[in-house]
Amino acid sequence: MQDCIFCKIVKGEIPSHKIYEDGEILAFLDIEPVNVGHTLVISKKHFANIYETPEEILAEMMKAAKKISKTLKSELGADGINVTMNNDPAAGQIIFHSHIHVIPRLSGDGFGMWKGKVYKEGEKEAVAKKITRVL
Amino acid sequence: MQDCIFCKIVKGEIPSHKIYEDGEILAFLDIEPVNVGHTLVISKKHFANIYETPEEILAEMMKAAKKISKTLKSELGADGINVTMNNDPAAGQIIFHSHIHVIPRLSGDGFGMWKGKVYKEGEKEAVAKKITRVL
Repeated sequence: MQDCIFCKIVKGEIPSHKIYEDGEILAFLDIEPVNVGHTLVISKKHFANIYETPEEILAEMMKAAKKISKTLKSELGADGINVTMNNDPAAGQIIFHSHIHVIPRLSGDGFGMWKGKVYKEGEKEAVAKKITRVL
Repeated sequence: MQDCIFCKIVKGEIPSHKIYEDGEILAFLDIEPVNVGHTLVISKKHFANIYETPEEILAEMMKAAKKISKTLKSELGADGINVTMNNDPAAGQIIFHSHIHVIPRLSGDGFGMWKGKVYKEGEKEAVAKKITRVL
């Protein structure tokens, strides 16, 4: 897609530090990493987000994310890995080309996790019903 | 696996609010949601994390996560979705049974994203080299 930064990286029009590549997938270093080695896994074809990415491409993206996760542990000594996909601006998506973040974590790196809330009485049942009626 | 809470949910020994199920996969409401409708997608078979989960199971988990993401948007009016897998305690994993969080986000819900850093001169090249020599 014209004017998509990730499409330009796929075409080599913008340089990147390539981490992994196969037929469908490209992975490269995030230029603003949470921690060193933070990698983005993208589909070479343009899809905006998880909703629009075909299942078989998501499968290939996850396969690559698994490979890279294991490698970030073995080669960079990561203590853990977050594998994350942000969809829509409300979820923190900035580049609208489907991508998975593979983030090496170090014990005590201070990158906080979310804090959960507690459901009100009867709320879980109502919510589950709303969701499952179309699934 | 004995003493695994998610295995007990699969076996029906611990109750849950089921969102989706197929041959390999179960999805149910997180009891401490970031936002209402926060769903966990698990493999029915026990694997500890992404490193140990077979590729074909990860593919099925992502397929379910996509379906659920679309449904959380249409049925709960989510403005965005985070799809996240935490691996190892350093990455926030608490239950050591491979799972994907599907988190509905609302504009301005205040659940912050990480903040990136900037690589030092030459660091990107060195890191990419370390990772790619085994990939």
